[in-house]
Amino acid sequence: MKSNYQIIIEYDGTNYSGWQYQKNSPSIQKEIEKAIKKLLKKNIRVIGSGRTDSGVHAVGQSANFICDKIENEKKFLGSLNYFLNKKNITINLIKKKNINFHSRFDAKKRTYKYMIINRKNFLVLDKNRAWLVKKKLDIRLMKKAIKLFLGTHNFNAFRCSSCGAKSPVKTIKKSTITKKGDKISIIFSSRSFLQQQVRSMVGCIKLIGEGKWNSNNLKSLLKSKKRSLCAPPAPPSGLYLYKVTY
Amino acid sequence: MKSNYQIIIEYDGTNYSGWQYQKNSPSIQKEIEKAIKKLLKKNIRVIGSGRTDSGVHAVGQSANFICDKIENEKKFLGSLNYFLNKKNITINLIKKKNINFHSRFDAKKRTYKYMIINRKNFLVLDKNRAWLVKKKLDIRLMKKAIKLFLGTHNFNAFRCSSCGAKSPVKTIKKSTITKKGDKISIIFSSRSFLQQQVRSMVGCIKLIGEGKWNSNNLKSLLKSKKRSLCAPPAPPSGLYLYKVTY
Repeated sequence: MKSNYQIIIEYDGTNYSGWQYQKNSPSIQKEIEKAIKKLLKKNIRVIGSGRTDSGVHAVGQSANFICDKIENEKKFLGSLNYFLNKKNITINLIKKKNINFHSRFDAKKRTYKYMIINRKNFLVLDKNRAWLVKKKLDIRLMKKAIKLFLGTHNFNAFRCSSCGAKSPVKTIKKSTITKKGDKISIIFSSRSFLQQQVRSMVGCIKLIGEGKWNSNNLKSLLKSKKRSLCAPPAPPSGLYLYKVTY
Repeated sequence: MKSNYQIIIEYDGTNYSGWQYQKNSPSIQKEIEKAIKKLLKKNIRVIGSGRTDSGVHAVGQSANFICDKIENEKKFLGSLNYFLNKKNITINLIKKKNINFHSRFDAKKRTYKYMIINRKNFLVLDKNRAWLVKKKLDIRLMKKAIKLFLGTHNFNAFRCSSCGAKSPVKTIKKSTITKKGDKISIIFSSRSFLQQQVRSMVGCIKLIGEGKWNSNNLKSLLKSKKRSLCAPPAPPSGLYLYKVTY
């Protein structure tokens, strides 16, 4: 009898080429599969809720894998984290699910958080954890503009050329922005996102905060569906896969 | 004509033996003095508002130094940060002060922040930035107990043997604790603190949160003035010199 386990994963994506397994570069998926193999002595495929790009972090990536029943889940988790700790990965939860549970196909909502630090000088305590924007950002303009993403749109202009999604139409359920001191945090929720969509949206919102774009630029961009007109995507270091909801 | 400059410094203390200059180990003071020497071609002494121990961070350490008038302060700051960035140090402000200004003797208040993360698994995104406490902490008990530090007390039990302060009597002006998710942040303000005082106070509050101590243990400890009865000090990785007020 096989069992199906969901895991919730936190990682520092800085030194990884991303979530997804790649033969010759370090990936989160590969490290977790290696750690599981050390414990279960078997090749087990770990299915993530979605890819994250190189340098992108996660607070709550969700994944699942099928294997023989694990007798002591708590002990298994402790051993797994012992191996993963050195790799800047930790698993915060393991949960036995129905055998049909699929971390990717069953996800109803994905929430991403993006962190900007708006100040003049180099980041130190938040190095590799945020995007340093030196020009003073107008949070009021950003708050107004970010609402334009809400609802269903063709986000073709916001995906990179390697994005494999069939349809560029996505529905944004949440788009908020808050400021505390020099820290600006942006949250987006949707059932799913296109590749580089969040970073592209943040890139546009930043141009609006700097006064280089206004809301009309954003409206035109959405309408145009042209990638070439999009703002440069925000760097991966500020992006966190925050939560996957089923 | 000599000028006196105040600087506000942020640093990641992880790989340093502390603020204070030491001949054979890396210190923040040494790095800043080296960077200033590169620019001004002179040995300049940088006076900190106080020492921070090995591994302790700062968001707002304050220091001052006396040198010939700097023509372009903004440019000077930029160049200084260029050298310091690789050292995990950044200077967020430079300000010309009265020639008599002394960052240590003139400080009216020092504020420290301590970060605890209360969860089971290894830290990843907050590695070297917080204290991982695995046992569930009772925030209500901690909030009540932390008030016992307020006011003037003999803190002899809370200082390490190498503390050079003449008097162990200090007045705590602020002691608060807040919780957000699994993050617990503790703030203490005082004109000055004894060496390891904040970490020792946090160590005691943590024992209270774990239910291993109650408020009476803390009262007795204060009365006893005995270091040997104090809780083990909290690790330096969670401590931040937050602000120095003049």
